[in-house]
Amino acid sequence: MDLYELTMAQSYYRHRFKAQATFDLFVRHLPPNRSYLVFAGLEDVLRYLKNLKFSQEDLDYLERLGFGEDFLTYLGRLRFHGDVWAMPEGSVFFPGEPVIRVTGSLIEAQIIESFLLNAVNLSTMVASKASRIMIAAGGRGVYDFSLRRAQGIDAALKVARSAFISGFSGTSNVLASKLYGIPAVGTMAHSFVLSFSSEAESFRAFFETFPNKSILLVDTYSIQEGIKNAIRVAGEFRARGHMLQGIRLDSGNLAQQARMARRMLNESNFKEVKIFASGDLDEYKIEKLAASGAPIDDFGVGTRMGASADAPSLDVIYKLAEVTNEGGVFLPTMKFSRNKVTLPGRKQVFRCFDKRGFCKEDIIGLEHENPGEPLLKKVMHAGELVCGLRPLSEIKETAARNMSSLRKEYRLLRRGASYPVLLSKDLKKLVAGLARHLKKPGS
Amino acid sequence: MDLYELTMAQSYYRHRFKAQATFDLFVRHLPPNRSYLVFAGLEDVLRYLKNLKFSQEDLDYLERLGFGEDFLTYLGRLRFHGDVWAMPEGSVFFPGEPVIRVTGSLIEAQIIESFLLNAVNLSTMVASKASRIMIAAGGRGVYDFSLRRAQGIDAALKVARSAFISGFSGTSNVLASKLYGIPAVGTMAHSFVLSFSSEAESFRAFFETFPNKSILLVDTYSIQEGIKNAIRVAGEFRARGHMLQGIRLDSGNLAQQARMARRMLNESNFKEVKIFASGDLDEYKIEKLAASGAPIDDFGVGTRMGASADAPSLDVIYKLAEVTNEGGVFLPTMKFSRNKVTLPGRKQVFRCFDKRGFCKEDIIGLEHENPGEPLLKKVMHAGELVCGLRPLSEIKETAARNMSSLRKEYRLLRRGASYPVLLSKDLKKLVAGLARHLKKPGS
Repeated sequence: MDLYELTMAQSYYRHRFKAQATFDLFVRHLPPNRSYLVFAGLEDVLRYLKNLKFSQEDLDYLERLGFGEDFLTYLGRLRFHGDVWAMPEGSVFFPGEPVIRVTGSLIEAQIIESFLLNAVNLSTMVASKASRIMIAAGGRGVYDFSLRRAQGIDAALKVARSAFISGFSGTSNVLASKLYGIPAVGTMAHSFVLSFSSEAESFRAFFETFPNKSILLVDTYSIQEGIKNAIRVAGEFRARGHMLQGIRLDSGNLAQQARMARRMLNESNFKEVKIFASGDLDEYKIEKLAASGAPIDDFGVGTRMGASADAPSLDVIYKLAEVTNEGGVFLPTMKFSRNKVTLPGRKQVFRCFDKRGFCKEDIIGLEHENPGEPLLKKVMHAGELVCGLRPLSEIKETAARNMSSLRKEYRLLRRGASYPVLLSKDLKKLVAGLARHLKKPGS
Repeated sequence: MDLYELTMAQSYYRHRFKAQATFDLFVRHLPPNRSYLVFAGLEDVLRYLKNLKFSQEDLDYLERLGFGEDFLTYLGRLRFHGDVWAMPEGSVFFPGEPVIRVTGSLIEAQIIESFLLNAVNLSTMVASKASRIMIAAGGRGVYDFSLRRAQGIDAALKVARSAFISGFSGTSNVLASKLYGIPAVGTMAHSFVLSFSSEAESFRAFFETFPNKSILLVDTYSIQEGIKNAIRVAGEFRARGHMLQGIRLDSGNLAQQARMARRMLNESNFKEVKIFASGDLDEYKIEKLAASGAPIDDFGVGTRMGASADAPSLDVIYKLAEVTNEGGVFLPTMKFSRNKVTLPGRKQVFRCFDKRGFCKEDIIGLEHENPGEPLLKKVMHAGELVCGLRPLSEIKETAARNMSSLRKEYRLLRRGASYPVLLSKDLKKLVAGLARHLKKPGS
């Protein structure tokens, strides 16, 4: 956590120990070219809250930083006992809408801030990026190849999971595959081809090792010769009853190469051999390749998806919405500084659908209202999970269902429409009332 | 690791078991606006190599993925026994220059690829970004506030470490502070101010908790009123012998606000109270603030540094440079595909200095040559560390020394000069020879 969570906590401990509060986690603005976001990262958040505690070693370190003994004794016993409401992972959501709402002791609800923001920022950013790539791929398979350029090992794991939620078919990341049950995929590197006395020899060696699932990388030397070698070796193995699974193109003009490869493969009666393409791909390049009609069956996507290159962070924030006064009564609160206004009170997000099942508009309202389908569900009660963690397959279905309820104008990769998010009558009234009685900043 | 490391390894195990190889890790191209990079991430790499092994659980999982029993038995016993040469962390380097060179069994040297790339990509990218921010700050203090928007928890730790290497003074990340011995810093959030009945009350509570190291956030309501409240409360505490450390500005026109704050503080005889600024800062904004003469003492930098927003990945690659033939003789090798040419042989990077100690040019050569100061040092011999891991303070000094040896034209934030990196005579000869005798891709 950030040090300021703990400095604030020590001050709360001494001055506002009994205070209860509600915080909202939401995204303030959409990144460029986005019209929607896909919520992910909740599982990490729930695991964190479930396991939050300070070890003796942690407390010793904090003592060295100058924290007081009274506060550290309290911290040593601290567990998270709050209530958490959240949208299900895989939900489509929009700026301003709380995706997680935490109510609990002011200290407990405050010190979890940094972790919650970190977890939701990464997974939501990547799930949203991956969802755009799936739109561009238009039904072709897409695989996560981002481990080497993801920002750290933790990121690589979360990227594989988030991309899978948004529709990817698998990952090259073996640990992610093992931890999350995502199909593992892999081919070969250029170094493999270079390690043998000839390209054909390297193909033979690989084919022999994986007779029924070889994907051969054909662009180490000349692509045309590479495809010829792949066809020759595949022919040798076909005679022994084994079929080449595919070839991979990793550089240059992928559309042109794919056309040549398809033609050459078909002429040699290898119609079922698939063509994989990779190499600095993102939704913009894939959209172009798809539009050109290039006969590419599957895409491998790495760097640009893994670090969400065109939007490497989200404007995700965690803001106080209400806090109890000295008498223990919850008072709604908000921040008025310019361009950074927050919404007060214990809120719910409601979604309204049209007759055909498409999302029409969302309404941010207060908990007691009911203008549409409420999106925030209670996931933690007094620090305990209300239900278990959801299987990844179910989260993937949520994402697919959410995306299919989104009209086309919101699924454009550029200059998409702005989805209407309104404030409910009661919330507007509350905001107006607070603005009128704006707490004087004086003493 | 990526699955393909293991598919290749199984094929090597069966076909090229005795092969030895050398791989180079380097960055192909500089990101936009960069003229140099700062190497970081080596410590992670060395820890990984030292501890590399497959658990029974890992092997069971790989068996389910279809790997052969012979290969898995071998994997269960596998440890890394290779030699590693590397530039010291904190070194300034340029595209094409190997920063890590690995020689060992082909299998061992191959399967570590994904981790090495991931580790060097993240830490080097951030150390380079942070170094630019230090240039912009021109002697003012800079602190890492990026935990909440870094891409995962692992990234947040590495960001704090890399930024510290490049000259940052501290981090808000308590775990990074504990693990790496980096000074921890922290102030308060807007929610703290909102949690009390008035801004002044919140300042009093915080001040009372930290009487000698309070930094008050003054922009929750009106900035002018916030500064007035800070001065009033600081006056109350000064009467009791305690001094306010600083105030923090977090939004709006920071230069204007800093001027107003400085004037108001000075008028109230608070000349020693520091002004901290934060809020979406990066080297470009800090350069502007510094140029405007804004009286800001220290900067807090988060999102844009933490995810290296304008260059969220490096073009870092790991390429085969030589491999033994069937007779056990090392043969230099290279990849010729268009725009992706690699350099063959066991290489060294040499740096040449001018009389005043500035870097003049670098020469990539073969190990036996000697045209300048060799930058790659042996850090691992047969899988064992040659020396221990270097203390972070020493790495920070390396970075400072390297940066001070870099002429101003290479330290510009935009349109910097292109530093000369040449190939040695012998390396050129080797490349020409290999190009002439380019291995035929045919069988």
